[in-house]
This record gives sequence, C-alpha cells and structure tokens, in this order.
Amino acid sequence: MATRQRIGLIGAGRIGRGHARTLAGRVPDAELVCIADVSADAARAAAESVGGVPWSTDPLALIADPTIDAVVIAASTATHAPLIAAAAEAGKAIFCEKPVALDLETTDAALAAVERAGAPFQIGFQRRYDPAYARAKDLIASGALGRIEHIRDTMRDPAPPSRAYLEISGGLFRDMTIHNFDCVRWLMGADPVEVFALGAALTDPVFAELGDIDTSIVTIRFANDALAVIDNSRRSGFGYDVRTEIFGSAGALLIGQQAETPMLRLDAGGVRSDHVRFFLERFAVAYEEELRAFVRALIEGRSPEPGPADARAALQLAYAAEAARAANAPVDPRRWG
Amino acid sequence: MATRQRIGLIGAGRIGRGHARTLAGRVPDAELVCIADVSADAARAAAESVGGVPWSTDPLALIADPTIDAVVIAASTATHAPLIAAAAEAGKAIFCEKPVALDLETTDAALAAVERAGAPFQIGFQRRYDPAYARAKDLIASGALGRIEHIRDTMRDPAPPSRAYLEISGGLFRDMTIHNFDCVRWLMGADPVEVFALGAALTDPVFAELGDIDTSIVTIRFANDALAVIDNSRRSGFGYDVRTEIFGSAGALLIGQQAETPMLRLDAGGVRSDHVRFFLERFAVAYEEELRAFVRALIEGRSPEPGPADARAALQLAYAAEAARAANAPVDPRRWG
Amino acid sequence: MATRQRIGLIGAGRIGRGHARTLAGRVPDAELVCIADVSADAARAAAESVGGVPWSTDPLALIADPTIDAVVIAASTATHAPLIAAAAEAGKAIFCEKPVALDLETTDAALAAVERAGAPFQIGFQRRYDPAYARAKDLIASGALGRIEHIRDTMRDPAPPSRAYLEISGGLFRDMTIHNFDCVRWLMGADPVEVFALGAALTDPVFAELGDIDTSIVTIRFANDALAVIDNSRRSGFGYDVRTEIFGSAGALLIGQQAETPMLRLDAGGVRSDHVRFFLERFAVAYEEELRAFVRALIEGRSPEPGPADARAALQLAYAAEAARAANAPVDPRRWG
Amino acid sequence: MATRQRIGLIGAGRIGRGHARTLAGRVPDAELVCIADVSADAARAAAESVGGVPWSTDPLALIADPTIDAVVIAASTATHAPLIAAAAEAGKAIFCEKPVALDLETTDAALAAVERAGAPFQIGFQRRYDPAYARAKDLIASGALGRIEHIRDTMRDPAPPSRAYLEISGGLFRDMTIHNFDCVRWLMGADPVEVFALGAALTDPVFAELGDIDTSIVTIRFANDALAVIDNSRRSGFGYDVRTEIFGSAGALLIGQQAETPMLRLDAGGVRSDHVRFFLERFAVAYEEELRAFVRALIEGRSPEPGPADARAALQLAYAAEAARAANAPVDPRRWG
Repeated sequence: MATRQRIGLIGAGRIGRGHARTLAGRVPDAELVCIADVSADAARAAAESVGGVPWSTDPLALIADPTIDAVVIAASTATHAPLIAAAAEAGKAIFCEKPVALDLETTDAALAAVERAGAPFQIGFQRRYDPAYARAKDLIASGALGRIEHIRDTMRDPAPPSRAYLEISGGLFRDMTIHNFDCVRWLMGADPVEVFALGAALTDPVFAELGDIDTSIVTIRFANDALAVIDNSRRSGFGYDVRTEIFGSAGALLIGQQAETPMLRLDAGGVRSDHVRFFLERFAVAYEEELRAFVRALIEGRSPEPGPADARAALQLAYAAEAARAANAPVDPRRWG
Repeated sequence: MATRQRIGLIGAGRIGRGHARTLAGRVPDAELVCIADVSADAARAAAESVGGVPWSTDPLALIADPTIDAVVIAASTATHAPLIAAAAEAGKAIFCEKPVALDLETTDAALAAVERAGAPFQIGFQRRYDPAYARAKDLIASGALGRIEHIRDTMRDPAPPSRAYLEISGGLFRDMTIHNFDCVRWLMGADPVEVFALGAALTDPVFAELGDIDTSIVTIRFANDALAVIDNSRRSGFGYDVRTEIFGSAGALLIGQQAETPMLRLDAGGVRSDHVRFFLERFAVAYEEELRAFVRALIEGRSPEPGPADARAALQLAYAAEAARAANAPVDPRRWG
Repeated sequence: MATRQRIGLIGAGRIGRGHARTLAGRVPDAELVCIADVSADAARAAAESVGGVPWSTDPLALIADPTIDAVVIAASTATHAPLIAAAAEAGKAIFCEKPVALDLETTDAALAAVERAGAPFQIGFQRRYDPAYARAKDLIASGALGRIEHIRDTMRDPAPPSRAYLEISGGLFRDMTIHNFDCVRWLMGADPVEVFALGAALTDPVFAELGDIDTSIVTIRFANDALAVIDNSRRSGFGYDVRTEIFGSAGALLIGQQAETPMLRLDAGGVRSDHVRFFLERFAVAYEEELRAFVRALIEGRSPEPGPADARAALQLAYAAEAARAANAPVDPRRWG
Repeated sequence: MATRQRIGLIGAGRIGRGHARTLAGRVPDAELVCIADVSADAARAAAESVGGVPWSTDPLALIADPTIDAVVIAASTATHAPLIAAAAEAGKAIFCEKPVALDLETTDAALAAVERAGAPFQIGFQRRYDPAYARAKDLIASGALGRIEHIRDTMRDPAPPSRAYLEISGGLFRDMTIHNFDCVRWLMGADPVEVFALGAALTDPVFAELGDIDTSIVTIRFANDALAVIDNSRRSGFGYDVRTEIFGSAGALLIGQQAETPMLRLDAGGVRSDHVRFFLERFAVAYEEELRAFVRALIEGRSPEPGPADARAALQLAYAAEAARAANAPVDPRRWG
C-alpha cells in the first residue's frame, strides 16, 4: 500500500488554484509537487500562492515525471481527454474535473485508455462529497428512508456565463445539468430508463442565438419505476441555488438553500438574511473532500468514486435529454449505452 | 347593491362543517340561514355546532327558499352539478367546492346553466385565498418579480385516502393535481399549450388495482414559453406538504413548509420541529377567506373568483395530463378547450 | 355537572370584540347571551358583529341577570376589581383580562371576594394557551427536558403605546413584563426567591417624562437555584417579538419568532420574509383557547387556570422588580407574599 | 512597509495545530517558519501535518530567532504572559490566544512589556472575525440600526470540560464569559459602568466542589444607558450554542444557531436538522480570518485588533462579574480600571 501520494496539478485557473490550496495543506498524505499550466503567469501565480512549489508550462512533462504518483486535471475541457489518455499511459492515477469531454466518442476513447492502463480514475462531481449530500446518501443506503420514490433536484446559477464560455460549453444539459444527472442517479442507486426534457431561452438573447437554452425541466423514470425531476436555470438573480429533495416510503430529506451567515436582520421592511452567492462558496468543503477521498482511495488501494462509468452515465443522460427535447418525446437513455 | 347576504349551506361533512363555522360568525354581512344535508344527523349536528340555525334534509327545498340569496355547496362531488344547475335556475349566487364534476361534459352542462342564469359562481380553489399565495399573486401582478419564467409546485398528502374515496375520486390528476393546475395557471397568468405527465403507483397496491397512480410529475409549457412542473404524492409520511416556487427575471418566491408551532426542540439527537399535518390546518385561513371574498363580491356586484372558466380550465389540464400519460407524449391541452 | 354555559361579556373594546367573536361561534357549549359596555355604540357594534346578540350599557345589570352563568370581563383595567367583586357576590364564574388591578391591595380585596364566594376564576394570561407554550409546558411536565435550569424570555412590542395609555398603564413591569413573570414562573414550576432589575428610557422622551422605562432586563433566581432572565422593550421597530428559550438538563426548547406567511422572497438584495406584526396576530389561537379552557373547566367542575394565585404572583414579581430597580439591588419577592 | 511576514508558532495543541494549518497555506504573505512546543511529539506532528516545516521544543529559541517577524502564541495559558513579555522584548509582533493571564496583575505586567516595546499585539477573540459578527459590527458602524439599545448574548458549551481543565480555568467568567464580555463591549462601542451577576452550579457536582459555577447571567449597563445581558452554560446537551441579538432604534440583528448541513429530515416524528457541535466548527472561518487580519495589519503598518486594551477590558469585566456575584449587588467595573 502506498503511503504518501506525490501529486501534479494541471491547470491553474479558478478551479485549479482552489485544488492547489487544498493539495498544498489540507489533504493528509498528499504532496503537491508541481503545477503545470500552459500560461506561465498562471502557473507561477498558483505556485507562489501555496508557498512556492515548482511549476512548469508543460503538462506532458509533468505527466512524464516518474516521481509523480497522481495527476489532478483542472485545465480547459478540451484538454481533458488527451491528458487523461497520456496520464493513463504513463501509469498515473487520475482525478479529472468534469466532463471528460463534451461528446461520447471522445469520452469513450479516453476512458478506454484508462481501462487499458488500469489507472485509478475519479471524475470531479464534487457534490457527492458535500456533507449534506454525503449524509443523504448514507441515510438512503442505511434504509432509513425506505424505498426512494421521488427526487426533485434543482440548480440555478446566479447569472449566465459569458458568451465565450457558452460557445464552448456544450449546452445546458452537458455543462450544467450534468451535475444533476449524476446526483439523481447516484442518490437513486438505479438506472434511468426514460428521459423527457423541456427547455426555453428566456433570460438572455445569447441563448437563442447559440441555439442553447437557459431554463429547463428534465423528467426521469428509473428502472424501479421511481421518478425524478431536474430543473435548471442559468440565471437566478439572487445567488447560487442548489437544492435536492428526496422522498422515500419512510421519510424525506430536503437539502436546502444556505445562508452565507446565520444572521437575520429585522426592521420595518421585514426579516432579511443573506444567501450563498456561488457554487465555489456552496461547495467549498466538497471541493476539498473530493481530493481527500481521491488520495485516501489511492492509499488504500480502492477504486476512487465517482469513476469512469459515472462520468459516462451522466453524459449519456445529457444526450438523452437533448434527444428528448429535439423530438418532444420521451426517450430511452440506454440507446446511448 | 345588496347589503346582507342570506346563505344556505348544502353539505354537512368535514368541509361543510368548517364552512358552517365560518359563515356563522366570521363573514361580515353574511347570515347562515339554513344547513341542508341528506343525513338528518349530520345536518342537525352541524346546525347545533353553530348555535342552532335551522336545518333540513332537503337541499332542493333550501335552494327553492326565496329568502336565500346564495348557496354554498359542500355536498358529495356527484351532487355538485345538479345542485349548481338547480341553484342557478333558482337565481341563487353559487359557491361550490371543487370540482364541478369529474368529467368535462357534466361540468360544461352545469356551467352552461350558470351562464344562462347569469348566476355569480365561485369554485372552491381555496389556495388562491391563502395569505402567502395571495401575496405571491400580488407581487407577480405588481411586476416586482419581472417576467415569470418557471414555477415549481409540489403537493403531498400525509397518507392515501381510503379505497372507497379513491374509487370515486376521478384519479390523481382530477382529484389532487387539479389544485396545482389551477395554482400554476393562476400564478403564471397565461395558458398552457403543452402538457407532459409521468405517473407511478408506488405507495400502496390499491392504486395499481384501481388503475390509478399515487406519484406524478406533470410538466407544462405556457403560451409565453415559460415552464412549470408539478409533482404530487398521495403519501408523504410526514404531514401535509404544499410548496410553490416562482422564479422571475427579477426575483423569486418560495412558499414553503409550515410548522404547526414556532418551536424548536434541541437535544443530543439534533434539532426538531413539528410540521403541519393536513390541508385543513394548512389552509384554515384560506377556507375562511374564500367565503369572505365570495360574499364581498356579491355585495359589491363583482364576479367572484375563481369562476366558471377557472373551474373548467383546471379539469381540462387534468384531461391533458391523463392523455399525455397514456400516450407517453406531450399533448396540447387546448384540444379539450 | 353543568352542560351549557350562558356567558355575559363586559367590555367591547379591541380585546372584548375578539372575545365576542370567539364566544359567539367557537367555544363548544358556550352561549354568548349579552354584551355590556358603558358605550352604547361599542356595545351595539360588537353585538351586531356576531349576529345580533342582546347588548346593554349596564355591566352591573348583566352581572345581576340570574340566567347568566359566567362573565368575561374585558373592560378597562380600573373596572376589573369592582366587577370581579360584584360578579363573585352574584355567584358567577369569572374570566378576567389581566390585571386584576395595578396594585396588590386592590387585587387582594377582589380576590378575597372571589375566595369568599367560591367563584371559579381565570385570569387572562393567554400565553399559557398558545399551542407552542402549551406544548412546552407539557414537555417540561413529562420530564423530557430533565431539570429546567435556565429560561430566557423576551418580549418586544412593535411601537410604544399612546401617552394616554402609558399614564394609566402602571408602568412597564406591571403592564408588560407581567406576562413574562407569569410565563417563567409557570414554565419553571417553582417560586422566585430573588429578583434584580435594570431599566432604561431609550425609545421616546415620554417614558422619562412619566418616570417610566421602555427597556428592561429582569433576572430571577428560583427556589431550586435555577435562573431566568426576562427582557422587554416597548419598541422593536420590526413587529411583535415574543420568544422563550428553556434549557433543561436533557434538552432545550426555543419558542421562536413567527412569520405571517411561510414565504421567502429572494432577489439581488438577499432573502426576505415577513414577520408577525402584533400580539393579536401572534396569540390569535391562544385568545380562543383560553376561553374554551375556561368553559371546559366550568362544565367539568374543575378550577380554571391560571387562577387567583397566579394573578397575584405575577403582580408580586412586578413589585419586586420595581423595588429592585429602585434600590439597585436584588430583592426577595416573597416580601410581598 | 513589510511585505512577507515570517511567523513562528508556539504551541501545538488543538488550537495551535489549527493555526499551523492556517498559517501554512491560507494566509497571503505569511510564511510559517517554525513550530515550537515543549512536547517534541506535538511539535513534530504539527510540523509534519503542514508539509514538514522546522520545529523545536524551545519556544524561547524561536522567539530569539532574528529571522522571525511575528509569533503566534497558542501554548497553555500560564505561559502566555512570560512568552508575550519575551516576544515583546525581542521585537516581535505578537498574536496571543486569549487570555493574556487569569489575573489583572500578570496581564498588566505583560501588556506593559508590549507597550514599552511598541510591539504590535492582537488577542485571540476570534468571534470578531466571524463573518456574521463582522457584518453585524459593520452594520452597527454604518448607522443602519440606529442607536444600539440592547444586546442579548448567549453561549453554551455542549458539555463541561474536564476537572483538570476546570481547576486551572480561572472560573466561568474569566474562561468562558470573557468572550461575551469582549463581544458586547465591541458591538456596543461603549464602556460598561455597572455589572450584576447571577450564577449557579447545576450541571455537575464538580462545579460546586471547585467553588465554580456552570450557569450564569450577567447584566450590564453602559455609559450611554444601553443595556446588555449575557448568559452562559457549561452544558447545553445539544451542541455549541452561540447567539447574539442586537436591538437598535432602527432595526435588529439576530445572529443565530447554525446547522452543520442545510438539510431537513422529515418523517412521522416531525422535522429534524443537525446542529453545529463545537466552537471549532462554528468559528472555523473566524480562526483563519483573525490570522489573516493580523498579518494584514502588520504588512500595512496598522495596529492589529483586538489589542491590549481589549484584552484587559474583558478581564476587568470578569472581575466585576465575580465581585457582583460575591456581593449580590451591582458593581462598577471601572473600579478595576
């Protein structure tokens, strides 16, 4: 069994810098040994922010470094698949931000490389490591809720991303709903057999221009006849909104909105509180926990979770939602299995 | 303009007795002058509980009483349509518990009688008179939320009704979801143009035996391209659950769960509170307010709301949901217009 | 055992009109037979608002009516003691709004008349009949909280009353804190042995002009060494604020603030909700429940609660608080026992 | 202006290890250069947990190290004063966990050394850096709440500490209430002029045996006639309870309890949520923020806050509370000024 994991981080953008801080001081038995980014400025700044670890502008050199045990990939989406393949061939354990790729073909090719190499692989669906979601999953697994019959999952971003981001995002279902697809599938512990989807472009003309949508409802029927519904919006106007409700035969869980601070302000206008602003705040703990779980799995010789099949299944559901919306009819997501 | 309304109440069951208490002392300018129920025991008990108003076992005699201005119909569903027709022909104003009837043909016939007579008519979708829902509607109408883009409406009963009730209920969509159909249509202020529905029988074998469902999701697209989703369950296991979320371009409203008492209990097991148990508690104020609004409208010579078109529109959406579920495809509810 | 109680109501002001509505339709086995107020307009209006019961301008005639079983006294404070004495001598059961009188001498004389006559007597500390407080008392009595060690009780009015009211109010401790004195004594189930009090006049110059205070803290030590603290303000600025926290060796209860409606509004300014505005809204149910309990006790031949000793004990604590504030030292309230 | 602060940490216990993690990766422009603890095991473990910084068993050698700019003292309370004096004489900036010492004489001697040396000094009242408390202070300072009239501050530990801890704790007021003394004084922005205190030993016989108390109420009058009340318990039984309510002429703030996770569980037993367990969880952010603020102040050449006067003032109020309790009378805390 390995003891200490030497980790290289690829990508020094917003998410990458967060992972750097986590890996530098908050993951037992992990050592951040190098940060690579094609931008020297980004790599240097990230390296300095965590006390001056080595950095480079060559991700492939980092992957080739024989002293590195595992890579954490947080570079731009288009690079994920080739970096995964290279890291797998180099015998590294791999943590990769979601998604592997925006299409199933590329995803399948990358994951095939992972499988050939027998490389440990974890995809960054961080929500699974949020304390509330993790506790919900434990309660479901314990049987405390009885049979799960219905899940309502909702997520709203505070404001739409830039046009540049949207152009390469893959569209609402592949970029945003994909988190919900993973979440409901994981919580239900069953496979979807029917997907229907509604979408609309309501918040900004850019969505219609790009043929994308900003508001959606996706309904799912599972193999065990249980139901789920997911709805999303690219613009809440009030902050980051992520909530999940799980109804079982013996009880329900409501994972709710979160205030930034536990403070109420009362005056003639009523009662006011604040609201968590963005996913980075809401999931700050989850982003750390997923890396701790990754390293722990490596040290204990277990397969990290969520793994390759989870990465693919969520994208498959995005395909199904797109097809359902195009056909205005329910579709079976196993068509893409 | 009329001043004081003399009201006859037909039906002395659970809802009827509540209306009796309201009419006897809590509606300005209303006088409860008679209670009729085909059961003498029920009629007498209800009459005595409000200080001894006259009672009879003959609803049609009550309707024929020329000193009565308005009738409140809370008898069993099957009697609604003939009583409405008789009351309309007798020149009475009519308040009727939902639904007019379980099918569109009977509904249309009864509402035609109302129209011919020019009778003021209000249907008992009490939720419109709940203080939270009424305030939500006002805020929407004021423009404070901007353009309404998405509504999430959910309702769960604590436990399934009896088999006897289910056998004559008309099924989940006509019996239960009909409240939600009225609610989202009213809040959105627009007409649905597409309905899709999923259902399952999960909570009790009786639902499958009756060809009914106990768990459902209905998605709706409105003429203005806004979306709504409704989900229902016949059995929450924890109490009465009615919540509605309204997302607009300038803000959102979350009408939430309600505790019975504003009390938290804290001990080694965590934090606990109670939960409102049933719709009669949750909508106690609404059941009074709707009758006050009915009488106020009569006195002021306005048409009461919700009216005949609202009663029909909700049933029409139930038809659409049933058809969508049968076809496993979205349908246009205007087909039943 | 009596079956039906014929009740006369004295006083048709704000509280009296509320009691009229309750007695007219919401108390089983009670019949409101007359309303007396020295103002004919007030008496008539109240009588008409509940369907036209008889009314008079002569409270003593009402008390003398041999067909009346019980009187509910909601006239101005100065009349409470003489009306109690007259009703006791006339053999009536008595429900009286708090306080019996603003001084112990008058209070004692009136309660002596009650005792001599053996008249059932209930004082209007309505909080005991609020569902949350009643449940708290039940939980304490059941032992579920273990030994009660500490109570924090707070109450704020939305805005100061008029100068005219303040001039005859008896001061903060006798007028407002008296509710809290009863509440903590009742919840603790033990007698105070030491009282200390701080006061300040901060919200309006009228308080200093009248030698009164508008902001206070009273600390209490009980015979069992448990502690309590009460704080009050005549002006919250945001609505009616009444909250009570009870800490026991095995758990705690937090009776908290109450929204008017279970609705959150979310926008760029954060999260907002409303707040219950005044004690009439907060304690609407309690004001009905206390009359139902009064009538139930009469019918079942039990002493109604809170009774004469409770009425006196709360005033005694107000005396102690005043003395403690004057002396700036703790005092033993049993001095006034 | 200094740029990067080289920091030595003294003390590798529970709080010290937390500071190590913060200083190692989460304070911009801070470098943790050495950890000293008289226990080699503790020092080594702490050093390794943050990636292997140098460590020693000699705090005075750390203080003597000329390359170190600032020391963070988290060793046992008895060592605070001598370490402060030594660090001041060595020209270091000083961050010290509360308290400086358990008595005013030792405190004054240590702070005199700080003053003679002109050393920047911050005391670890972390609550000032909690986001909710910091926002409250900002709102007060902005005038948004008007004149502050009343503060209610409450704090309960989940369970009493060990007898060994209690024996050297200095008693409830100096060990626990001292946080509240700082908090209310800071929020009020005024000096207390009168203190009264009640205490009781209710939770465990150990308190009576040690002549200590476990339950207390302290009332405070400020120079501006505003009032405050603090209550504490050594044992809540349900988790860590810290809440503060601030009432101003134009509004109020309620800093409330915090759940560990934003999740409700609903079943037949009602609604349940979890509760934050201990101060380390509740103030996790504050413990980081106070060190960031300390370093920022050093770099910007400002005096860090809370400073020497704040450290002394809170202890002075503890003295006053003890004297008030002993005399069972209010006392003027300026007597110890």
